[in-house]
Amino acid sequence: MEFSSKLLENAVYEMSQLPGIGKRTALRLVLHLLRQPETQTQHLVKALGTLREDVKFCKKCHSISDVEICDICSNPNRIQDIVCVVEDIRDVMAIESTGQYRGLYHVLGGKISPMDGIGPQDLKIHTLVEKVKSGQVNELIFALSATMEGDTTNFYIYKQLEGVEVKIATIARGIGVNDELEYADEVTLGRSIINRIPFENALKSS
Amino acid sequence: MEFSSKLLENAVYEMSQLPGIGKRTALRLVLHLLRQPETQTQHLVKALGTLREDVKFCKKCHSISDVEICDICSNPNRIQDIVCVVEDIRDVMAIESTGQYRGLYHVLGGKISPMDGIGPQDLKIHTLVEKVKSGQVNELIFALSATMEGDTTNFYIYKQLEGVEVKIATIARGIGVNDELEYADEVTLGRSIINRIPFENALKSS
Repeated sequence: MEFSSKLLENAVYEMSQLPGIGKRTALRLVLHLLRQPETQTQHLVKALGTLREDVKFCKKCHSISDVEICDICSNPNRIQDIVCVVEDIRDVMAIESTGQYRGLYHVLGGKISPMDGIGPQDLKIHTLVEKVKSGQVNELIFALSATMEGDTTNFYIYKQLEGVEVKIATIARGIGVNDELEYADEVTLGRSIINRIPFENALKSS
Repeated sequence: MEFSSKLLENAVYEMSQLPGIGKRTALRLVLHLLRQPETQTQHLVKALGTLREDVKFCKKCHSISDVEICDICSNPNRIQDIVCVVEDIRDVMAIESTGQYRGLYHVLGGKISPMDGIGPQDLKIHTLVEKVKSGQVNELIFALSATMEGDTTNFYIYKQLEGVEVKIATIARGIGVNDELEYADEVTLGRSIINRIPFENALKSS
């Protein structure tokens, strides 16, 4: 791409550094901003800048928060000794939106992924292990994605906690509600058969 | 979506104001920035802010430029009396990349679109009409998209120039090079038959 303006080229380049945004899309976005009132760009720039500078992470669960201890961790009505282990804040938001979970969270900040150069020391695993070892936790629920990296991370944490008295569970994998059997992949379908549950339990949860 | 942080919510909101970026994508982009070094956000914010503040438009063709008269308009080797009328700078870049055009451009900044509240006075039509009336232009080439809005804009400019001596052309519509006939839509195929060209001319241009 040949640009007639260095300023434009630079803005497009920086925009295209975002994931899933190629040069063409970046150009479209930047030209859109140029067509809108200047205030829109100012607001965007300010919101991103302020977030990056002032962002805080909850001291207990490492989720993004505007205060030292986030709303969930500081809520006395939440069950204090059940901790759900998730990858990032999107998973917290997704689980919260189900309204089915009343315990606390622990945000790892990613998954162990040697391919991307992410090891255990890059994640908030140490604080989780400490938390469990100090006896505050009765049950851990792994809610990482069911990928190689997710499974590796689960297993790593599990090994770290060997000998520690804590219940460890992982969220159920299976056919999604309303999904058709014929379109499910074999692994998921296989797991949902191996991990079948008594019909009476299913009746209760629906 | 329920956010645990006002700063995050605000950044996601501003990001989702961009075209084609919904709340979920905006959240993904913002979380990506949080995971990257702070410098990446700083560079993005700076590039967008500087562009919006310092952006200049060429006084002759209204294309984006870092100087008063853009490189194309100030190039004495370009044919000075042929002007290609386009919607925005992306079209200039697309046509330039063909290497087939040696004339000048006129960037309208959009198309007449009553549905979006864009009238002729919102576009750089007046300066184009002036330019043509002053006798600087021998041939105008309309290169707007072949939509209702593009056709309306072409026709509006055409009417404004009634009685003015200037050749007016529009870029050819037809089956794309390497496209299969059976997949072409009827309107395009119909136009390509009506506007058929002598085979000898086709031989020359290929």
